[in-house]
Order: sequence, then structure tokens, then C-alpha cells
Amino acid sequence: MAASFTPTPRTRVKRLHERGHYDRETVYEILDAGVICHVGYVIDGQPYVTPTSYWRHGDRLYWHGSSASRMLRHLKHEVPACVEVTHFDGFVLARSGFHHSINYRSVMALGKAQLVPENEKLAALEDFVERLFPGRWAELRPPTPQEIKATTVLRMALEEVSAKVRTGPPKDDEEDYALPVWAGVVPVSMHLGAPEPDPRLVPNTDRPEYLAWLPGFGAPLSEAAD
Amino acid sequence: MAASFTPTPRTRVKRLHERGHYDRETVYEILDAGVICHVGYVIDGQPYVTPTSYWRHGDRLYWHGSSASRMLRHLKHEVPACVEVTHFDGFVLARSGFHHSINYRSVMALGKAQLVPENEKLAALEDFVERLFPGRWAELRPPTPQEIKATTVLRMALEEVSAKVRTGPPKDDEEDYALPVWAGVVPVSMHLGAPEPDPRLVPNTDRPEYLAWLPGFGAPLSEAAD
Repeated sequence: MAASFTPTPRTRVKRLHERGHYDRETVYEILDAGVICHVGYVIDGQPYVTPTSYWRHGDRLYWHGSSASRMLRHLKHEVPACVEVTHFDGFVLARSGFHHSINYRSVMALGKAQLVPENEKLAALEDFVERLFPGRWAELRPPTPQEIKATTVLRMALEEVSAKVRTGPPKDDEEDYALPVWAGVVPVSMHLGAPEPDPRLVPNTDRPEYLAWLPGFGAPLSEAAD
Repeated sequence: MAASFTPTPRTRVKRLHERGHYDRETVYEILDAGVICHVGYVIDGQPYVTPTSYWRHGDRLYWHGSSASRMLRHLKHEVPACVEVTHFDGFVLARSGFHHSINYRSVMALGKAQLVPENEKLAALEDFVERLFPGRWAELRPPTPQEIKATTVLRMALEEVSAKVRTGPPKDDEEDYALPVWAGVVPVSMHLGAPEPDPRLVPNTDRPEYLAWLPGFGAPLSEAAD
């Protein structure tokens, strides 16, 4: 497998092209640090954007949901789709409004999704749970045939993909650096809170080890990814 | 102005309809708690999803960027668009894989954006800065005519809009509550870190008061919104 994606006219980052990245390592790191993507699709000329959880396995992205979902019923017909993952990393405060910015890491993947065949669904769903909570799949009440049937799993090959990343302090006009205006970065990150046990938890049910990494977030998610 | 949006066949939440909300109060609260939206649009039949910062003023959403941006150059022609805002609030761990879920608050707005006229751009950009950092606009080096010209500001009327919200513990099948499986919610939230001053800050530049609310996030953002 090539170490980099080939930029196309649709994925090449043109403005601020130094923010564009096409190597698999950068793309996979951004994807594996996230949980929610935004899926774009078109019905009757109207674009829709649906947030949904996703996971990566090798060179494919996966997402799933109820077989009744409008988004999934549409995309299973292998029509054009766009999957976006964005991490909001900080506010960038410059000395002029114009140079204010956002620090972020994002990935855009264009392609057509396809149905995961019936006999591969279970393994895909296990991947999803195990990426987030290693060891949990074996503890759960196993899926019933009806549940599997009611679940649609889609996958999309990662082929036409780019990443866009901004990091670091503001970039002001040279003459503005002399101004006594506070400038810098206010970092933003996702945090996990203390787990809240279900009020109906069976008494003395231990909190599993895979929740012991709380409240750290980024690290365990990336470690769990393949 | 009506207190609620009228659901259309395109915005009515059909599956899990109890998660759907159409009142302005819920929609505005979700919008005003966020910074980054995902904008969907279609070029040559291909959907694209672009993350960008946004703000609300009254019953309109605004976003902006370089006049050279593909997204803005396309959307200024008043073509169909979809704006999505999502807050990821937690992992919902159930006793079966099937009932695992995500707690979230999201808004989807369908419509056509239009250019903010030249003579209204400056006030719109001031809104954007002041929503996040009240008082900062007056401290900044004022925008130049060239900067204003190089910036496109779009707005979209909030007309065809729905919110979707999930909160609370897992909802398991009745017989599964007897299983000794840990279940509950792992909350997720956005946090601000300590501000990182620009290495080239003029010595003795005070950190402004509007950064004093750190590291709280949600509250000041909602308070600052109109």
C-alpha cells in the first residue's frame, strides 16, 4: 500500500496549501483520535450532513446504524459521499481580526460507501466496540439475529483523501507584532468525565478496567486503534 | 417570530422521534454553545463537507472565510446547503452492543446561504469576535479595506431546522438489566486549556479579562450569545 494518498483536483488543498497532508500516517492518526464524523450525501439535489460514530479498519472507514436510517438507506446504493472528521484544537488570537484562526486537525474522504455483507457485520461491530473499550465485547449479552438484521454497516475505501492541519501561534503582519494586544492560543480539547453508573446497575458490578484510563482521552483511543 | 420551526419532510426526525426538537429555544441553545459547524454542499454531483467556525445573530447563521475558498465561492450563488452543529456529550454503555449509544445535541439547518453585503460585513465580523471574546474587537488593529475585500461573509436564514438530542442512561431490554455488566454513561465535554501567549508578545501585555473565564467553556460562550 502506498505511504501517501494521491491528491486529486477534488482533495488537493489549494489555499494555505502548507496545511494539506496526504500521507497515510497523518490521516490515520487524525481518524483514530476521533469518534464522531460528519457524513455528507445528496438526495434530490439537497445536501445533507449527518453526524455519526465511525471507526477505521485498515484502509477502510466504517459506520453503522439502524437499517431504517435515511442516511444509510441512501448511501448503501453506492452513491457519492463525503466523510469529514474534525478535531477542534484551539482558538488562535492574533493582533488583527483578519489573522485570527482556529487550530484543528481534519480529514476529508470522498468515495462511495458499500454495504458490509451479512457474514462480516458481526466482526465489524466487534471492531467498533473493541477500539473504544478493549475487552467489552466478550462481556456483553451477544447480539441476536434480529438485532444484526436491524443494523446496517457501511464501509468506504480510503482512496481519495486529504488531511488539513493548523497548529501553532498566530501569524500576524510584521508591523502588528509591535502592538500591545494580547495574542496567543487558547487550547481546546475533549475530556472524559467520571463514569456515571446506570441507576439500575446490578449491585457490586465492578467498573471494568478499560474505563480505568479515564479521564485521559486522546491517548487510549489512539492506542486502541489498529 | 414563531416559537418553533415547522418540521418538513426533510427535517422531521422520524426514527426515535422523541429525540427531535423544533423549538427555537432548544435550537438556539445548541447553536450558541458551539464554535465549529460542518457545511454540506454539492459540486458536480459530489457532496462536500467543510468544517468552519460560525456564529448566530437573531434568526440567521453566519460563517466566513477567504473569498478564494471553494466552499464560499460556491455557496454565495445561493445553492442548497446544509449546516450541521454537533456536541458530543458522552458514550452510553449498555448491556448489549445493540443498545450502546452516544449522548449528543445536534442541529441541522437546510437552506440557501447568501452574501452579506459589503456595507454589513464589518458589523458581522465584529459580532463573531465579540461573541467569543467580549471587548476584544476594540483592542485589535482595525481591518483594512483590502482585508475586508478578501473576506467573504455568508448568512443563512434559520427556517428549515431541527434539533436532535439524546441524554441519560442506556435503555436496555428489560431482561438484560439482570446481567452483571457495567452500564452507564461516560461524559465527554470540551475544555479550554491555559492560554499560551505568543512568543512574540510585547513584554508586560496583560491577559485580557475576557480570557479570565478559563478554563470553563460552555457557560461563557452561551452567556456571550445574544
